[in-house]
Amino acid sequence: MLAELKGINEECGVFGIWGHDKAAELAYYGLHSMQHRGQEGAGVAVTDGQEIKAHKGLGLVNDVFKHAKFEELKGRAAVGHVRYSTQGGKGIENVQPLLFHSQAGSMALAHNGNLVNAHQLRGELELQGSILQTSSDTEVLAHLIKRSGMETTETSISSALTRIKGAYAYLILKEDKMYAALDPVGIRPLSIGRLGSAYIVASETCALDQVGATFEREVLPGELVTISDEGIESTQFAMPRQRNLCAMEYVYLSRPDSNVNLVNVHASRKQMGKELAKEAPADADIVVGVPDSSISAAIGYAEETGLPYEMGIIKNRYVGRTFIQPSQELREQGVRMKLSPVRGIVEGKSIVMIDDSIVRGTTSRRIVQMLKEAGAAEVHVRIASPSIQHPCYYGIDMSTRDELIAANNTPEEISDIIGADSVSYLSEAGLEKAIVKDDTLSQGICTACMTGKYPVKEGNNKEMSHTNS
Amino acid sequence: MLAELKGINEECGVFGIWGHDKAAELAYYGLHSMQHRGQEGAGVAVTDGQEIKAHKGLGLVNDVFKHAKFEELKGRAAVGHVRYSTQGGKGIENVQPLLFHSQAGSMALAHNGNLVNAHQLRGELELQGSILQTSSDTEVLAHLIKRSGMETTETSISSALTRIKGAYAYLILKEDKMYAALDPVGIRPLSIGRLGSAYIVASETCALDQVGATFEREVLPGELVTISDEGIESTQFAMPRQRNLCAMEYVYLSRPDSNVNLVNVHASRKQMGKELAKEAPADADIVVGVPDSSISAAIGYAEETGLPYEMGIIKNRYVGRTFIQPSQELREQGVRMKLSPVRGIVEGKSIVMIDDSIVRGTTSRRIVQMLKEAGAAEVHVRIASPSIQHPCYYGIDMSTRDELIAANNTPEEISDIIGADSVSYLSEAGLEKAIVKDDTLSQGICTACMTGKYPVKEGNNKEMSHTNS
Amino acid sequence: MLAELKGINEECGVFGIWGHDKAAELAYYGLHSMQHRGQEGAGVAVTDGQEIKAHKGLGLVNDVFKHAKFEELKGRAAVGHVRYSTQGGKGIENVQPLLFHSQAGSMALAHNGNLVNAHQLRGELELQGSILQTSSDTEVLAHLIKRSGMETTETSISSALTRIKGAYAYLILKEDKMYAALDPVGIRPLSIGRLGSAYIVASETCALDQVGATFEREVLPGELVTISDEGIESTQFAMPRQRNLCAMEYVYLSRPDSNVNLVNVHASRKQMGKELAKEAPADADIVVGVPDSSISAAIGYAEETGLPYEMGIIKNRYVGRTFIQPSQELREQGVRMKLSPVRGIVEGKSIVMIDDSIVRGTTSRRIVQMLKEAGAAEVHVRIASPSIQHPCYYGIDMSTRDELIAANNTPEEISDIIGADSVSYLSEAGLEKAIVKDDTLSQGICTACMTGKYPVKEGNNKEMSHTNS
Amino acid sequence: MLAELKGINEECGVFGIWGHDKAAELAYYGLHSMQHRGQEGAGVAVTDGQEIKAHKGLGLVNDVFKHAKFEELKGRAAVGHVRYSTQGGKGIENVQPLLFHSQAGSMALAHNGNLVNAHQLRGELELQGSILQTSSDTEVLAHLIKRSGMETTETSISSALTRIKGAYAYLILKEDKMYAALDPVGIRPLSIGRLGSAYIVASETCALDQVGATFEREVLPGELVTISDEGIESTQFAMPRQRNLCAMEYVYLSRPDSNVNLVNVHASRKQMGKELAKEAPADADIVVGVPDSSISAAIGYAEETGLPYEMGIIKNRYVGRTFIQPSQELREQGVRMKLSPVRGIVEGKSIVMIDDSIVRGTTSRRIVQMLKEAGAAEVHVRIASPSIQHPCYYGIDMSTRDELIAANNTPEEISDIIGADSVSYLSEAGLEKAIVKDDTLSQGICTACMTGKYPVKEGNNKEMSHTNS
Repeated sequence: MLAELKGINEECGVFGIWGHDKAAELAYYGLHSMQHRGQEGAGVAVTDGQEIKAHKGLGLVNDVFKHAKFEELKGRAAVGHVRYSTQGGKGIENVQPLLFHSQAGSMALAHNGNLVNAHQLRGELELQGSILQTSSDTEVLAHLIKRSGMETTETSISSALTRIKGAYAYLILKEDKMYAALDPVGIRPLSIGRLGSAYIVASETCALDQVGATFEREVLPGELVTISDEGIESTQFAMPRQRNLCAMEYVYLSRPDSNVNLVNVHASRKQMGKELAKEAPADADIVVGVPDSSISAAIGYAEETGLPYEMGIIKNRYVGRTFIQPSQELREQGVRMKLSPVRGIVEGKSIVMIDDSIVRGTTSRRIVQMLKEAGAAEVHVRIASPSIQHPCYYGIDMSTRDELIAANNTPEEISDIIGADSVSYLSEAGLEKAIVKDDTLSQGICTACMTGKYPVKEGNNKEMSHTNS
Repeated sequence: MLAELKGINEECGVFGIWGHDKAAELAYYGLHSMQHRGQEGAGVAVTDGQEIKAHKGLGLVNDVFKHAKFEELKGRAAVGHVRYSTQGGKGIENVQPLLFHSQAGSMALAHNGNLVNAHQLRGELELQGSILQTSSDTEVLAHLIKRSGMETTETSISSALTRIKGAYAYLILKEDKMYAALDPVGIRPLSIGRLGSAYIVASETCALDQVGATFEREVLPGELVTISDEGIESTQFAMPRQRNLCAMEYVYLSRPDSNVNLVNVHASRKQMGKELAKEAPADADIVVGVPDSSISAAIGYAEETGLPYEMGIIKNRYVGRTFIQPSQELREQGVRMKLSPVRGIVEGKSIVMIDDSIVRGTTSRRIVQMLKEAGAAEVHVRIASPSIQHPCYYGIDMSTRDELIAANNTPEEISDIIGADSVSYLSEAGLEKAIVKDDTLSQGICTACMTGKYPVKEGNNKEMSHTNS
Repeated sequence: MLAELKGINEECGVFGIWGHDKAAELAYYGLHSMQHRGQEGAGVAVTDGQEIKAHKGLGLVNDVFKHAKFEELKGRAAVGHVRYSTQGGKGIENVQPLLFHSQAGSMALAHNGNLVNAHQLRGELELQGSILQTSSDTEVLAHLIKRSGMETTETSISSALTRIKGAYAYLILKEDKMYAALDPVGIRPLSIGRLGSAYIVASETCALDQVGATFEREVLPGELVTISDEGIESTQFAMPRQRNLCAMEYVYLSRPDSNVNLVNVHASRKQMGKELAKEAPADADIVVGVPDSSISAAIGYAEETGLPYEMGIIKNRYVGRTFIQPSQELREQGVRMKLSPVRGIVEGKSIVMIDDSIVRGTTSRRIVQMLKEAGAAEVHVRIASPSIQHPCYYGIDMSTRDELIAANNTPEEISDIIGADSVSYLSEAGLEKAIVKDDTLSQGICTACMTGKYPVKEGNNKEMSHTNS
Repeated sequence: MLAELKGINEECGVFGIWGHDKAAELAYYGLHSMQHRGQEGAGVAVTDGQEIKAHKGLGLVNDVFKHAKFEELKGRAAVGHVRYSTQGGKGIENVQPLLFHSQAGSMALAHNGNLVNAHQLRGELELQGSILQTSSDTEVLAHLIKRSGMETTETSISSALTRIKGAYAYLILKEDKMYAALDPVGIRPLSIGRLGSAYIVASETCALDQVGATFEREVLPGELVTISDEGIESTQFAMPRQRNLCAMEYVYLSRPDSNVNLVNVHASRKQMGKELAKEAPADADIVVGVPDSSISAAIGYAEETGLPYEMGIIKNRYVGRTFIQPSQELREQGVRMKLSPVRGIVEGKSIVMIDDSIVRGTTSRRIVQMLKEAGAAEVHVRIASPSIQHPCYYGIDMSTRDELIAANNTPEEISDIIGADSVSYLSEAGLEKAIVKDDTLSQGICTACMTGKYPVKEGNNKEMSHTNS
């Protein structure tokens, strides 16, 4: 789909619930609302206090669960996971939550993020005789917990967490407890909600809303939260540092109705559009957003400039996995796929086309060309975030640096390449202004892919791009 | 989904192509772009000049064609159909195009619309010894053509068309010709396009765009168009009258990028929003549209009033046929389905909620309640079309009069019923202003469901509601 | 499968039930037991006394009904049909029972057999203004009934039946009655059973056994049976003539546990094997049957000769529709498909290989070659029926005369062609001796495909081969 | 199916191939021919010398591979597995081959058998810090190999094999080698074949025949076979002892065309029937076998006694996973499932009913009752193997001792329970006579389930029944 064309592959989403009779079913609904975070696979592990059972599969949440028997997934606690789509590692063995059995009990793990020292840790574990069955970072944590040798599980987990570096939001389910942990700089989002007496932990607040829960608070950087029938407890396994929440969560990844680290995503995007309008106005007739993720910014841009916002590009809602891709011949004859221009709107108009980001530039070129073929007089591309020039090592599967069009070209050159009449990006300052509401440490964002300022630097970066989860 | 909740069931869509090597494949893409017009079933009939073959099935276009072998659907001409979902008549035998064989050759028919004298015609045909195998109006036309006894097929078809009354857009495929016909007041849309030397006829222009074709002209009321390898010919089987194009095509049914009878749907909706703003302003903080069909009107309303347009309601893109509906218990606990409010946007705000129409009022009540639970201070409902008070006999499956909330209640009463702070509708004059650009006869609209002014009145209306196709 | 290789395509099966609360479900089980009579499609039409509903689909009975909602197929009467697989006419529109609606009521028809004057009757019907939607003979009867103009339905049906010629077993379901009719020479089998107070009519008695019913009697040639809540009535629409029950029902088509016209199929096959042993003994070590249909005859041959019966060929039970056919390259390397030789049994042995029939000879050649490659010293082919030299016009889809190996070659030549050491067939007299127990008119068989003696000769034979049902 | 009714669940099957361009495809065909050994899941792991890829899934071989892309499963070596169906442990994570990755390379394992010391080994591994993700014995071996610390892989595997006890046939695939190992008493079968220059190792010789390979030799008890591009090598990791090949492979599990440890299965079954006839004749009219597994023995019994063999019970070939099981009510009314009696054969007859074994007795009771309802005068049950009185710890999932009817009842009592007129079993001596052709050590069989003489006794037997694979 669009995301694949663009070269940003979405990351994963996690959902945990403790203390509800319909735990597995609510996990299903929660994961469903986070489907945009991963379409490759999905799973739910549930415990009735005695054992942990899982239902997992490849495909969309609906596909995986349409034949699930929820009456066999009984229990008052569950963790779930949606997994994003990559070229490699598509096997069913990588679908989470992962389950680990020992004679003392079982453990289910679900993970959103990416470790930067996974390769090194795997090497150490193998030397010690461990066998790893997946290419997932989640499995590394399981081995570290097992080997930590501490007495209580809390201390085992804390001890294991101090060994890993990178971006992570972990949910761990045991028969009698659920744990949630966030990395020390808080790159990934993780929120806690309440539904009656039940606790819910989820990657996005839209999942809390989906199941009727109310937001309680964020999991803090370096925090290990323990939830059981005794209630909720918190320990810090690492000193919290300046928060570095992934800016792309606001720009592109999260659902507009989610609040990421207390900031509404739609509102921040609209504000990005407004800041962009101030920084890079355009002499045009109408403002058009690339659906779906750029609509908010386009509306902000239109509001700030006073130009009319128009639906100049439409997205076909029914294009899905079973859509038969048109042959090259038919595409050349003009057969459309996911996006279509609205000729009646764009014909003869000078257009400001708002997009959230450009990765390789191929999609942008296609859309600009499509608008021009539909009669647009001019197309001024305005990107509602700073240009992406660096790879992400924290779980977003962008292209390599060689493929990043902005790593090697100026906006003017990009404009030529994609056939636009002009290209401008939002500045880093503009982005921060749109997201960060105060100056406290807790509100910082990670802009590594735009600025190269990596908040967590250790580890062999070479491996990072293929072990996302 | 939403449409079902609302009580408007979408009608059908037809697509025909003559003179292209990939006729069946292009029909697939064309139907795909009109998927919103019918999700119950789909089919394509194709001819290689010798025989007519069909591939049909229940379900979405993608489901029906994912295992189709296009190499077995060879031919340079094809007609296709998407069928909407109803409670009764779901059988595979009703999926179109219908095929009729005789020793002289075959014929495939696809139909969008509804006849008002079908019951009477069926009775006559049976008395003459005919056997009908479907409950579809399409079959009635086939029998009339067969029995017309005229010499050429054109005259047989013309003669048969003079017998039927109602709303119809027919496509008829023979081994050597394709015919397109529109009823004398032109209630349904039907457009002609060109793709190289090929001709295309489709219910919506988005299907022309989808396959890379360019719009040529509308099929006119009372016109029978004949397309063959010799080119295109036109005859009038009935005197054209004042056009009465279904207003709901603009309000709700058509895709925003389509031009219906030369008027862009998105633009007309945006204008409805502007007219509504003039007629029914509201003292509010923000404007929110109910996705997807009300977004255009909401943007127009916002633009006219100067109020900010906000994404206060979000639609889950992944809710589809396999979505597991939450139990009553879970729904009462707050588990969401297709629409979610964006708490961060609506909390504490006075909202103008724009919707395209209200049928039974149940969905509106649910959305208003959802917004209030998410913290909205006030919800002023503004409907971008006049109130629906009368049943449609021309192919739109609305509820019966008893169920139409506006047939029995004033806007104030409706406001009370749905829990809003105020409710206003667009006037009939406002609607016309938004759609009709000039005063010629060719630009009229049918507003029967709003005004009770039925442009075609004959026939036994009792039967009409269940024989849509 | 084997049947396809061999060139005999199986015919259809019908099942009707009147007076049972689970009519549709029992029809499912009954059809399931007759799955061998048709694998292309299946359907059940059921009536609750008010209307007739149908569930139909392409594929095996299980595939068609696995998602059926029997609670929506309520009623105390049903007719069902399994359809065999052909190259042409595979469309869903040809799956039976066919449904016909009129304002006076509905009618469902299911048919096993083939008409020899269908082409002529279709021409007449079309001249009178009828439209035929399928290529099925069943539809012809429906039109004839409709047009017969008699007062009661019984007389309409009787009158229509006098117009058609050929082989047929019809079941007709109305809201208040079920009819069963058999052609005047009784080429197809049709049996009546009782299950409590319910009546059942089925092509094979194995379907009666399947649902726990007890056999009551055969439907007689030229008889029209009417079943209703008033009980069972019988009329003769034609003078009964010498029965001519299709010999291939005994030789190959029917299930061994069925009694066809009161004669058990397994027993008759075993007797064919015994007669064959008397007529064509062989100097060999062991007797081997080609599974599944030739096992009975092989056991009879072994019993008569005193040679040991051995399982020298095994059939892979899991080869089905989804089996991935090996490429030519792999087949040449020896990858097996449905049948495998048992090397440990056949190695070094002189074998009598019993098969029920030879059509084109390709399968026989393949099996003989397979046995020789597995080490068989000699392979003496013995066919438990007379050689097939003439096409069937009564519903069995054999090859054309040109392809029938026995039409153009002596047994010696056939032996050379298929690589056997000798080939012998059962004589016509031997076949009759194995099946016909007494000399009454009611026990005759049709051996037209073996002897060219066609019991019903009128009509244009050219068309017959493609309108089987 | 029948096996489930009976209470014997089949074990697994393994297939390995080295040195063929179509390795994965041939593994598919090989597994297909061993489908009877496991219907729960299937998988193939293939290596191109660089990496190991796997395709696995739940269900029948055809279901798992119907959408497989063999062009993505490139490589000249592969191992495959079919898994049998149990109540517990049905998860996808247990489908084999299991894959294990380390930075030094990958390893795929496939296993047929059951370890008797798995529980103890798991405990030890966990104490050392290992984490096990499946409940499969295969994973235990992988950990032992990893931890063995020997220099070459051969010695690592040999060392690991000396730690495990029980019944096992292992296939291990590395990028550059394939290993096959059999337990020291050779309870499971494992044969080597050649296909051109390629080597094949499979549980049954029918898999060699299926792919056109020729049998080469058996893998010997205690032998580790190493196959690579350098050819085949053999080492003994344990002193070979008296062979104890599972008698149930001959009685019930293997395909009749397989040679198990050089003895043809059909021939041994026929001989069991003959020995049974000598030991336990019956005064009856006909001999009837319960299809499919008892047909060979029934033919032997008939041949020895001179009684006619008749097809008195027929098996419906189309009953599969999607068959809709009749409700209790319909079953009581007589609706049949998989087996049907042939009334025309059994009516009024005194029958010898041959079955291969009785486990719980429920199926036998059902069949006897079915025959009597169909009119059988007497039913003398003759079992072509000794009575099963002890649980199997080596991979056959029989019922517990409490459920084994012969553990608690004499043949006379069993006859009463199942409603037969008499019941007799084959003696242990008779069984041996039918299978063992000479007195060498290499020809022994394991009769533990019949005699309680367990050839491998160590380990905690409590666990054995649920960790079969």
